Amino acid sequence: MAITVYRKAHFNAAHRLFNPEWSEERNAEVFGKCSNPKYHGHNYNLTVGVTGTVDPITGFVVDLNRLKNLIKTLVEDRFDHKNLNEETQEFAEVNPTAENIAAAIWKILREALDDHLDLKVILYETERNFVECTGV
Amino acid sequence: MAITVYRKAHFNAAHRLFNPEWSEERNAEVFGKCSNPKYHGHNYNLTVGVTGTVDPITGFVVDLNRLKNLIKTLVEDRFDHKNLNEETQEFAEVNPTAENIAAAIWKILREALDDHLDLKVILYETERNFVECTGV
Amino acid sequence: MAITVYRKAHFNAAHRLFNPEWSEERNAEVFGKCSNPKYHGHNYNLTVGVTGTVDPITGFVVDLNRLKNLIKTLVEDRFDHKNLNEETQEFAEVNPTAENIAAAIWKILREALDDHLDLKVILYETERNFVECTGV
Amino acid sequence: MAITVYRKAHFNAAHRLFNPEWSEERNAEVFGKCSNPKYHGHNYNLTVGVTGTVDPITGFVVDLNRLKNLIKTLVEDRFDHKNLNEETQEFAEVNPTAENIAAAIWKILREALDDHLDLKVILYETERNFVECTGV
Amino acid sequence: MAITVYRKAHFNAAHRLFNPEWSEERNAEVFGKCSNPKYHGHNYNLTVGVTGTVDPITGFVVDLNRLKNLIKTLVEDRFDHKNLNEETQEFAEVNPTAENIAAAIWKILREALDDHLDLKVILYETERNFVECTGV
Amino acid sequence: MAITVYRKAHFNAAHRLFNPEWSEERNAEVFGKCSNPKYHGHNYNLTVGVTGTVDPITGFVVDLNRLKNLIKTLVEDRFDHKNLNEETQEFAEVNPTAENIAAAIWKILREALDDHLDLKVILYETERNFVECTGV
Repeated sequence: MAITVYRKAHFNAAHRLFNPEWSEERNAEVFGKCSNPKYHGHNYNLTVGVTGTVDPITGFVVDLNRLKNLIKTLVEDRFDHKNLNEETQEFAEVNPTAENIAAAIWKILREALDDHLDLKVILYETERNFVECTGV
Repeated sequence: MAITVYRKAHFNAAHRLFNPEWSEERNAEVFGKCSNPKYHGHNYNLTVGVTGTVDPITGFVVDLNRLKNLIKTLVEDRFDHKNLNEETQEFAEVNPTAENIAAAIWKILREALDDHLDLKVILYETERNFVECTGV
Repeated sequence: MAITVYRKAHFNAAHRLFNPEWSEERNAEVFGKCSNPKYHGHNYNLTVGVTGTVDPITGFVVDLNRLKNLIKTLVEDRFDHKNLNEETQEFAEVNPTAENIAAAIWKILREALDDHLDLKVILYETERNFVECTGV
Repeated sequence: MAITVYRKAHFNAAHRLFNPEWSEERNAEVFGKCSNPKYHGHNYNLTVGVTGTVDPITGFVVDLNRLKNLIKTLVEDRFDHKNLNEETQEFAEVNPTAENIAAAIWKILREALDDHLDLKVILYETERNFVECTGV
Repeated sequence: MAITVYRKAHFNAAHRLFNPEWSEERNAEVFGKCSNPKYHGHNYNLTVGVTGTVDPITGFVVDLNRLKNLIKTLVEDRFDHKNLNEETQEFAEVNPTAENIAAAIWKILREALDDHLDLKVILYETERNFVECTGV
Repeated sequence: MAITVYRKAHFNAAHRLFNPEWSEERNAEVFGKCSNPKYHGHNYNLTVGVTGTVDPITGFVVDLNRLKNLIKTLVEDRFDHKNLNEETQEFAEVNPTAENIAAAIWKILREALDDHLDLKVILYETERNFVECTGV
């Protein structure tokens, strides 16, 4: 029987939606005020879910302290209080939409987790807009 | 790789649980105070999830402004500040339980969305009671 | 030293904003869709705050079970799953705005509490609109 | 078409993480402060999801009052205001991790529900840590 | 008897904490990563409280639609999706700390409200950090 | 003009309500299941509010990092994952009701803060029960 263990985290970042192959006019047309060249920002709330069987010795699917530290080291330290477009490798050439940020976090954490565990990433850009990535 | 994009919305409505083929006594017996003939009401909180692949040009599964406007036009304008039993076509003859409201919203939005997108509807009737409809 | 003890409760009710001395047109003009004659409704979330000194024997300002039961008997049983305009004495002739509902609840609870305790009532009509009544 | 109906509940309990086959030192090493022999505690928030088809007569997947009472009788009365390690049969020999508590609740409710209904249990140990058990 | 009516709103903005009279080093020393020259950002959640007596004709302290529009026009349109340091007059020379943003919003709304109404502004910078300004 | 700055924190602890001058029967009679001799527990959510004038140089009432560290050192490290009755000096002889815990935290923080700052402590024992202590 599988159990999914979830851990919440957050980071605050600046970004703008921007396709570098388009003119500023085209970017403004498609992305509206989200494409403001001076940036805006969000409190990103992140929920990471890890699915696996429960270890009968510890009663854990995954040690939550280890998961918490992975998220801290690999995600929060990378993105917190950063300008996603200008200061991160992940979004130097990729548009930092909620979809793309969630997919990037999924890939980062997928490499750090054991193969037998499944991974789900949920990212809130605002209280009303959020995305979910299961890697499938 | 698929991503699900979620958008939250809400509407406030009056309703009563009521099976017109039953007597008032039978309705009161089965539905309790939820069948009060004078109605009661709720703040319905709605989460709409749309699943698809990310467009490499925009970084979007779906344009959230378009999704927000669809929900506004097709759901909020139809149900907000309405008496569901007396003022909506959907519940003229269908009991407006949370299950049936969620299914009705799912059908309304399903018709408006492109075929290659999957749809999920989550409807909160109260903070403690909610339902989810994936159309499957 | 005074401490305030808060207890949350809720009730679901139908209502319409309505001044009986006005025409339906004037009501619609001032109150908009909130004046729909067929009613709409809300999940009302209520927070009751009681201020006093801590009893050194029990460590309580007020027994929370007693407070919980007062709110249940005097407020929830009176308003839950009711049509406020048609089925309550308090709003037979008083417009059931959030302001007036909070003031009515304040008066009801004030009479039931000991004189040496202060009372505050906070009423959420929606997650974004709420009112506070301290009786002053 | 299937619908999932969710009901939230909660209970407050004391526990410690503890493997009786290990020394106190080993328990402290693996479980940290969660293994404090004097116990700590949590407000456990529980969400129970029941999936099935909608009864065309009632508009219900399951009568929420019946589900609410099942959760009250089988889960809340059993675990609320208890010391999970010392006062419950379920965790007399099983480590009361969030994973194991969710699995125990899933088993208890599974036996009480009709076979044609699917069951999901989500258990929040804190606002940031939670687990999900679908029995699969 | 006075009642306070509250309305919630929000805006998303980029900012950095910065004292222009200090060197970048001194800014980094005092404000840490909040002073990142490339900016970071927040979902600012705003609660505006207006205190007054209830108009016996309408049952309102203040028309919530009017209050909602004031907040939209004077606060959201001014700050939403903006870089507070670079694109607003209020923070061209004032450090956009939560304290200063709340005070600026208080002053803006104070001028727009009738003198007999009292005003309170609560501003959430994150879910864990918020400030309150009553003008006193 | 004064501003209040709030910081949220939390700790998880076991406790029982207990007056040592009473018999177990009397304790059970007055405190019900909250007096279970084997303990139960809570996720205590704490909000600390500090009121003062804004420093024109920094734009801060108080450095939130300093406040966060004070709460961590003086409150969280003292109470988190502890049995309040058995493992803390504050509640060795004082009944750990929410009122008394809030008052104890207020006193601890009051001594650590500069005299010109006012202090408010809000403590949630559950999502529905909370207390507020302003020291007045």
